Amino acid sequence: MSDIDQLAISTIRLLAVDAVASANSGHPGAPLGLAPAAHAVWKEMKFNPKNPDWVNRDRFVLSNGHACALLYAMLHLYGFDMSLDDLKHFRQLNLKTPGHPEKFEIPGAEVTTGPLGQGISNAVGLAIAQKQFGATFNKPDHTISDLYTYAFLGDGCLMEGISSEASSLAGHLQLNNLIAFWDDNKITIDGSTDCAFTEDVLKRYEAYGWDTLTIEKGDTDLEGVAAAIKTAKASSKPTLVRLTTVIGFGSLQEGTHSVHGAPLKADDIKQLKEKFGFDPSKSFVVPQEVYDYYSSLAKKNQEIEQQWNKTVESYQTAYPEEGAVLARRLEGKLPENWADALPSYTKDDKPLATRKLSEMALSKILPVLPELLGGSADLTGSNLTRAPDMVDFQHPSTGLGDYTGRYIRYGVREHGMGAIMNGIQGFGAGFKNYGGTFLNFVSYAAGAVRLSALSHLPVIWVATHDSIGLGEDGPTHQPIETLAHFRATPNMSVWRPADGNEVSAAYKSAIESVYTPHILALTRQNLPHLEGSSIEKASKGGYTVYSSAEKPNVIIVSSGSEVSLSIEAAKKLASEGIKTNVVSLPDFHTFDKQTQDYRLSVLPDGVPIMSVEVMSSFGWSKYSHEQFGLNRFGASGKAEDLYKFFDFTPEGVADRAAKTVQFYKGKEVISPLNRAF
Amino acid sequence: MSDIDQLAISTIRLLAVDAVASANSGHPGAPLGLAPAAHAVWKEMKFNPKNPDWVNRDRFVLSNGHACALLYAMLHLYGFDMSLDDLKHFRQLNLKTPGHPEKFEIPGAEVTTGPLGQGISNAVGLAIAQKQFGATFNKPDHTISDLYTYAFLGDGCLMEGISSEASSLAGHLQLNNLIAFWDDNKITIDGSTDCAFTEDVLKRYEAYGWDTLTIEKGDTDLEGVAAAIKTAKASSKPTLVRLTTVIGFGSLQEGTHSVHGAPLKADDIKQLKEKFGFDPSKSFVVPQEVYDYYSSLAKKNQEIEQQWNKTVESYQTAYPEEGAVLARRLEGKLPENWADALPSYTKDDKPLATRKLSEMALSKILPVLPELLGGSADLTGSNLTRAPDMVDFQHPSTGLGDYTGRYIRYGVREHGMGAIMNGIQGFGAGFKNYGGTFLNFVSYAAGAVRLSALSHLPVIWVATHDSIGLGEDGPTHQPIETLAHFRATPNMSVWRPADGNEVSAAYKSAIESVYTPHILALTRQNLPHLEGSSIEKASKGGYTVYSSAEKPNVIIVSSGSEVSLSIEAAKKLASEGIKTNVVSLPDFHTFDKQTQDYRLSVLPDGVPIMSVEVMSSFGWSKYSHEQFGLNRFGASGKAEDLYKFFDFTPEGVADRAAKTVQFYKGKEVISPLNRAF
Repeated sequence: MSDIDQLAISTIRLLAVDAVASANSGHPGAPLGLAPAAHAVWKEMKFNPKNPDWVNRDRFVLSNGHACALLYAMLHLYGFDMSLDDLKHFRQLNLKTPGHPEKFEIPGAEVTTGPLGQGISNAVGLAIAQKQFGATFNKPDHTISDLYTYAFLGDGCLMEGISSEASSLAGHLQLNNLIAFWDDNKITIDGSTDCAFTEDVLKRYEAYGWDTLTIEKGDTDLEGVAAAIKTAKASSKPTLVRLTTVIGFGSLQEGTHSVHGAPLKADDIKQLKEKFGFDPSKSFVVPQEVYDYYSSLAKKNQEIEQQWNKTVESYQTAYPEEGAVLARRLEGKLPENWADALPSYTKDDKPLATRKLSEMALSKILPVLPELLGGSADLTGSNLTRAPDMVDFQHPSTGLGDYTGRYIRYGVREHGMGAIMNGIQGFGAGFKNYGGTFLNFVSYAAGAVRLSALSHLPVIWVATHDSIGLGEDGPTHQPIETLAHFRATPNMSVWRPADGNEVSAAYKSAIESVYTPHILALTRQNLPHLEGSSIEKASKGGYTVYSSAEKPNVIIVSSGSEVSLSIEAAKKLASEGIKTNVVSLPDFHTFDKQTQDYRLSVLPDGVPIMSVEVMSSFGWSKYSHEQFGLNRFGASGKAEDLYKFFDFTPEGVADRAAKTVQFYKGKEVISPLNRAF
Repeated sequence: MSDIDQLAISTIRLLAVDAVASANSGHPGAPLGLAPAAHAVWKEMKFNPKNPDWVNRDRFVLSNGHACALLYAMLHLYGFDMSLDDLKHFRQLNLKTPGHPEKFEIPGAEVTTGPLGQGISNAVGLAIAQKQFGATFNKPDHTISDLYTYAFLGDGCLMEGISSEASSLAGHLQLNNLIAFWDDNKITIDGSTDCAFTEDVLKRYEAYGWDTLTIEKGDTDLEGVAAAIKTAKASSKPTLVRLTTVIGFGSLQEGTHSVHGAPLKADDIKQLKEKFGFDPSKSFVVPQEVYDYYSSLAKKNQEIEQQWNKTVESYQTAYPEEGAVLARRLEGKLPENWADALPSYTKDDKPLATRKLSEMALSKILPVLPELLGGSADLTGSNLTRAPDMVDFQHPSTGLGDYTGRYIRYGVREHGMGAIMNGIQGFGAGFKNYGGTFLNFVSYAAGAVRLSALSHLPVIWVATHDSIGLGEDGPTHQPIETLAHFRATPNMSVWRPADGNEVSAAYKSAIESVYTPHILALTRQNLPHLEGSSIEKASKGGYTVYSSAEKPNVIIVSSGSEVSLSIEAAKKLASEGIKTNVVSLPDFHTFDKQTQDYRLSVLPDGVPIMSVEVMSSFGWSKYSHEQFGLNRFGASGKAEDLYKFFDFTPEGVADRAAKTVQFYKGKEVISPLNRAF
């Protein structure tokens, strides 16, 4: 190891230790252990701190996100938009150095990590995106994309099932652009890995179809890291490098779990600085030669980017058609008028399941949106997520598809799929992507779904079989709490369209979304097209779909399969002299963004409002005074039998609406949208 | 294969095919493929159809629960409470033969399966429970527990991360009482496993520390199954048996995914019956000799149970102390007055975090409840789930504990932990069990949590770090939507205690629960003990904790860390002339079970009610007119800075309460508990 390497590594270590100490909170152990590897890996990477979004940069994912002080120190030293002052305010109410890396907040943080197992799974998504992007645009004489994705991960990431799912798929897909370093430091929060984690990790990864390498002296062997990267780049498979490190290297508590998640004590920091040849009385010290060194590396990288820019220019001349698409995608623009491709319907069109209408919408927009990738967690024929002429994303050697393919066979791996979608979306290059499963099993992926929302990654879940309407599969598959869960999640659009126009509106919202993930909850069973629906109206998230009077006696607000049921109830109520309007509310999130005037025109003062949805009524009181829902688990049976059994019939709805009118008779009724603060 | 074996297997196959056909819905493929193995495995098992809860029965778990027609046919043939008529009403609104096996509904279904990966993980829990139970009660001269857990699982189960988590732990724990059969039929819903699942499964399981075996001819090789079981029983590890089968064996579509999830066509059924020597014009046929055969097997088993009963009798004489505990546990009773061990507090006690108070409660009740097992997903020191004198549940060879140990080191495997807890709880023998993680990461286990509720398994989640109050770890770790999610789940108690007495009430509810799982949401930060709290009052789920007036101007309803904050606000409001009462609502589920009179005494008509909770306000309108919540992601920073930043201060609360009073002035105010229907 050269002197400058040693000095740089010590600088990284002490910046991380000082940051944690100044916050009096954080994780010094992993940064101390991983600083040499980070230094060595970043030396091999191409990226430009001044243009952190350059699309052909190598990607670095810190899957063990609690080691973020390491990442922030690296970002600072390389000259990203991360000041020493940011480091000094580590973990404080200051959005540049949060307790775990957040994609949306930190230039240079490729994905949001901390919840274990997510990062390595995002990395699989980044690698998939690179393969697909490269296969789509590269030409024999022009390489547009040839980057690698690097990931650090800890024992915790390896224990989480999500990493198993994503890693197995990465092996299957032969993603040889993925190089992961396992920080084998033998320590987790509970103590030695002997307590709970004694599997043979490398053997497991070989079983997945990865190559594996070992660096025995991860604390010092920088050449070993460089050599491992060289070997990994020559492999036809993804590579897992086992890197033996000492957690809390240099600390008085090195090698113990005490150094994992608590700041070092003052005397420990003192001896550490002395050991590394730094002045123990000073904090946040960066020797000028370290800045100079990293800045020389960064400069070399900038030259690589400039070269790439020239390649793109030449590409656009040589391949004007692909070049135009490339330019558009790099600008982050959709094709003009793409939404014209979305189908619209009238009430005379044939009743269809919204999952089928989703398939019809997808088959129209997939040809105009080459940046749209799809997939399903082994429910393709049920989710109806694959247009007939799609090519599967597969290694060409399988004979099942190739890397230009836009349809990903995820296998039964919902959580992995969620994180992989975040990785694809996080890659940039204009990618949009959707994944299918049953709505009930989006919950398996809850950990990834919340990170989509937190990271502002507008991925799309095609979530079919959205209620007891799925019928015979029974309560293990019938969502009850699922929509409440995701509607309560910030920055999340949860669409439950009632017919074909609403399905198109849902896709319009999902595809145009820049920051907000979408879950499209779709029926298994057929629904009629509504006379009062349109893409435009539904695009407001909520609107009056059936109006019987300017000033009705009651308003029914509903979603999805219960909207047509509610309209039937309204017609029945009319015959009983109760004037009833019906509001379709396919997406709370979108409706909440409309003006208060508009919202009050839909759900006004003075009229009692009852919600109807065949699942947990939890949360519906936000838009209604009374709620008709299903606050128990469902049952196995024919869909129509179940609706009848639970009284979700025109009579059942009308009966409750009549009781609502009765209850509020003579009482002052304030719209639930009118709030005290 | 003998004639009776062949006839029995054909009978199972055709019962399953007829059931699926009569429902016109279901999965014939796996039952056709797995019937020989099921027949062969059950022959090796001990159980008593007339006493399906016998505690020393072998356990059978159908992890690929969509193959339930197979299970129901077996239960019928062996004489469980499952009639031919039940089979004829397969998947109909009839609770004995639902679309996937449900523990609570079907005698003989050990756990609820269908959501893939759960069953094999439950099986790990069953195996843990057996080891612990056996180690606790067995004596050299008296064997109380020596059963095996058998599981069938498909490719889908193996792809799900949850099975990776649980299987890795099973290998670590050396659970050689667990024998799993992988139905290697090369087919998933999307087609060939070549599409997405090409890993080397046996190698992966060897990496986990399992033994592996292969039966090449799973369609015919009954002797191979018996031999594999013999080998597995002699192993010191859990065993995975790869069983090569043909999905839809005998059908015209055998070996294809078409036979997975759709009924066979009439002509296919006809040729199948002819091929098997059955009358194609008849359905649901069971030859008498098949009944006789299974009944002779069942009889042999009954004798084994009788022998066991004698062993228990003799045990109770020889070991009266252990015998008494055993008798109590088998009766499903708690020790009398166990709850007296729960600590109570007064306002002068030192402020403490509710996670710390949870530790204090656990340390008191663990000694009086030997049936209580605990654990944590690698957050022991943060969850405070381990009493100092607990022994770890570990294989004795590790030197880290033994099988009498009551503390399980789950590793960073929340979803696996959730399913394993379901298995332990489903084992019976009076087990109670809890597992710790951060509240935010209970979401990783959402798939298992909903099955706890559906299966009526009263497991306990010790879910610490329950809000932005955890501080610096930031938004990746701060729950916002989590409580809404679980409160919307049927049959789920979600406690968020405000102080020591409420923590004790939460544990009282959790331990005494027979059917309802509990999530205890606990703070990282210290909270004061409330003057107005008591275990008794909190046990109602909601109560007035601070009363300033018989008829206040406003009621604040709150939970957990915001209750003391709300009381401070109430005192501040008093000085402004606004009479404010504060209601603590630690558990919606328990409060909902109280009489309407009681509930209205807490949240009466005529007073505006405002909720205060520092997370999503979604759902709080069930108990309040106005909601003060946090409907965005949190931030990284000191807890007190975050509370201030988001205006969760006495001033911030008081200000909104005053606005609430103002808004409702002169308006008729109906309690949200008064409903139209």
